[in-house]
Amino acid sequence: MTLPLQAPQSAELYLAVQHFYARQMQLLDDGRADEWAATFTEDAVFAANARPEPVRGRADIAAGAREAVEQLAQDGLVRRHWLGMLSVDARADGTVLARSYALVISTPRGGQAGVHVSTVCVDVLVWDDEDLLVRDRHVTRDDLV
Amino acid sequence: MTLPLQAPQSAELYLAVQHFYARQMQLLDDGRADEWAATFTEDAVFAANARPEPVRGRADIAAGAREAVEQLAQDGLVRRHWLGMLSVDARADGTVLARSYALVISTPRGGQAGVHVSTVCVDVLVWDDEDLLVRDRHVTRDDLV
Amino acid sequence: MTLPLQAPQSAELYLAVQHFYARQMQLLDDGRADEWAATFTEDAVFAANARPEPVRGRADIAAGAREAVEQLAQDGLVRRHWLGMLSVDARADGTVLARSYALVISTPRGGQAGVHVSTVCVDVLVWDDEDLLVRDRHVTRDDLV
Repeated sequence: MTLPLQAPQSAELYLAVQHFYARQMQLLDDGRADEWAATFTEDAVFAANARPEPVRGRADIAAGAREAVEQLAQDGLVRRHWLGMLSVDARADGTVLARSYALVISTPRGGQAGVHVSTVCVDVLVWDDEDLLVRDRHVTRDDLV
Repeated sequence: MTLPLQAPQSAELYLAVQHFYARQMQLLDDGRADEWAATFTEDAVFAANARPEPVRGRADIAAGAREAVEQLAQDGLVRRHWLGMLSVDARADGTVLARSYALVISTPRGGQAGVHVSTVCVDVLVWDDEDLLVRDRHVTRDDLV
Repeated sequence: MTLPLQAPQSAELYLAVQHFYARQMQLLDDGRADEWAATFTEDAVFAANARPEPVRGRADIAAGAREAVEQLAQDGLVRRHWLGMLSVDARADGTVLARSYALVISTPRGGQAGVHVSTVCVDVLVWDDEDLLVRDRHVTRDDLV
């Protein structure tokens, strides 16, 4: 097991990825679907074992998010996406492989908060100037494994 | 979306805030109410959508925490405060704006652990020598939004 | 409350410990029991308030993990170990004291994810070249306190 965190560069990267996810999840959970979709590349692919086909491209990713945001508002639910247990590998081609657990917490208005689903999220991240963007995301729900 | 984490200074700050929260939450959950309150400034304001009025000043914040600690002991409950999805912005005036999700996990003695509440925590942190302190905290419970 | 995170060395350490736990928990939850056990020293001691006696030595720690992995597979359960609220202290003897909350999320195949147990994990970590290893682990389940 190598822990490539001795070099300051790697520590910076690990933190940048943490911060990226914090902001990305807050955008989604705040209902800012288009800003959230802007954290994916134009040609990003978002695959999930809960869906028959991957969603392809930022426009479709944004459309799906807007739909989900509206549905949650109709249902009176607040969702919070937590990422944790993050491991990060800088790859030779300049992309970043990030693997994390993602937990979705759901709270009905006036009701009891609880765990909605537990998932594993594997991302290929790329640099766009000083920002990270998701180029490939694969989310695996634990209940559907 | 800017990720101001390229500079070592910002990475240091992000980590300092993470570590601050880890220690702060451990103090509260360990029932060390006065030490926990000492992580707020003397004139701190603690507002929450679950309370009609903010609590003002470290002394009242400590009193409230002592009361909560006693109540939990009477009820035979262990509470754990988890903070995550932390975003940090260093501001021009030297203060630090920190926004995070806070999840409260509750376990009755001999019983089943579960999510108690899901919240968003927005803090203004200030430096006191090498320590961070909370000057303003605003906690929003998702069930009361 | 001191936050020894001003020095780059300490920030590096804090991140190395975070990354260590992310990889360690992923190994366990992926069912890679022997690789997981290899993140403990040969003479490691794993104590828990849920067990009458500590488990001593990497071989027995591995055997226990293999058994747990098989049991979960038989029961059709996916477990995810989340560590958070991590505080880290570098000690004079070169070891690292790490205290964290550990939450176990459990998902039955085709069923509803939920919190299994909430615990506190106190580790003594040691360096083995560039890798961290657990020499002493003490896990306290909140329901058994």
